[in-house]
Amino acid sequence: MGTLYVVGIGPGGDGDMSIRAIEAIKDSELIVGYTAYIKILKDALKCEAWINEKEFFDTGMTGETKRCKYAIEEAVKGRKVSVICTGDAGVYGMASPVFELLGDEDIRVEVIPGITAACSGAAILGAPLSNDFCVISLSDRLTPQEVIEKRLKGAATADFPIVLYNPASKGRPDALRKAVAILKDCGVPETTVCGIAHSIGREGERVTVTDLGRLCDNEVTMSDTVFIGNSLSYEKNGNIVTPRGYKVD
Amino acid sequence: MGTLYVVGIGPGGDGDMSIRAIEAIKDSELIVGYTAYIKILKDALKCEAWINEKEFFDTGMTGETKRCKYAIEEAVKGRKVSVICTGDAGVYGMASPVFELLGDEDIRVEVIPGITAACSGAAILGAPLSNDFCVISLSDRLTPQEVIEKRLKGAATADFPIVLYNPASKGRPDALRKAVAILKDCGVPETTVCGIAHSIGREGERVTVTDLGRLCDNEVTMSDTVFIGNSLSYEKNGNIVTPRGYKVD
Repeated sequence: MGTLYVVGIGPGGDGDMSIRAIEAIKDSELIVGYTAYIKILKDALKCEAWINEKEFFDTGMTGETKRCKYAIEEAVKGRKVSVICTGDAGVYGMASPVFELLGDEDIRVEVIPGITAACSGAAILGAPLSNDFCVISLSDRLTPQEVIEKRLKGAATADFPIVLYNPASKGRPDALRKAVAILKDCGVPETTVCGIAHSIGREGERVTVTDLGRLCDNEVTMSDTVFIGNSLSYEKNGNIVTPRGYKVD
Repeated sequence: MGTLYVVGIGPGGDGDMSIRAIEAIKDSELIVGYTAYIKILKDALKCEAWINEKEFFDTGMTGETKRCKYAIEEAVKGRKVSVICTGDAGVYGMASPVFELLGDEDIRVEVIPGITAACSGAAILGAPLSNDFCVISLSDRLTPQEVIEKRLKGAATADFPIVLYNPASKGRPDALRKAVAILKDCGVPETTVCGIAHSIGREGERVTVTDLGRLCDNEVTMSDTVFIGNSLSYEKNGNIVTPRGYKVD
């Protein structure tokens, strides 16, 4: 029986990959992914001789369905196949198209979770997500803009710290500015502490700590993840802290 | 200079720990944590001879501040110390009390992210969190009940899939029932697909797939994580799928 692993490889380097993710990739004959992520994987595992013996199948940004279909077809032939995503396998990842496409094929499917940018970005910013939080993608490629706006409004009303994935792209230079305007309209103060985790786990990793009023003065790219604190979040020695609620006196 | 690692060890076994988490623990002379989590760590790393050479400091459930203070004090002496949490280091973890307690001590602090239950639980349920989502703890030990209710209402309004941490405890047998009642009051239909990830990554790991109307008919304990789908989520072959939005035809 073939095996289809859906593997979250974490933010970048091998350090944040799980043991199980590495073992699944090692166990696979064929590794399927977005071209840029296959490159990240090869770089992360370049010290492992076995990575050079693998077969790779990669496509560009809009080839997700094609990649998942191909991976399922090859697993049906009895092969061991990994479909990889950066971050987690589920969060804006490939687990959902795989399960949407799967019928009653006689293959074993195993989803291997990874560290998503909400967690890896929070780690370099201090402790912005210590309590409840929400995650919203600003990309309108797969989600209608009105749904994104509804999510932002709900998040503001509920005083969630917010993690914004896909905060910008060449085709959406104003996405973050629009989101910030919605939050302000909902009464989120301009003094709310915000952070940007740039290129988490990759070359050029760095953080910016700012506030909602000045967030859009910073250059934000598709490699960045944006954190917006809640009413309890504050900046301390360059870190963002959202208290968990413990008495620390 | 002393080093303080705040380490997320993931859900349970060593398979879901990151390479960096294992290296930080190996590098530490002293490992500090909640008694039950120290046990999980020792079990996960029992094949590593070096784990037996470590010094451990553990306390019970309400000793978080004491543990973090002790870890900081020992790092100030020049030692290498790991404060561990299951799941991620930030999400309901120890990163926030550590940063709240830190002053201007001359130590190096590194937060090492881990796989949180939202991701590890989603992985065994299929693909319930493929798009935006939110995470809410039902424990009122550190968060006032009215804040929990505000978060649930905001999540329902925004049509977020919801991950409920700490869905039950001996002192709060009705927490999940109350949360479900709030969601129903907000118009979330009884047919909404729900899942329970029981004992993720540990002995007894299993899943339950049900719906909002029947969710509370299931036994839910503090070892479980509850997933509530959104308006687009559905059950397929025993898995929960929330579509990412790709055209899969």
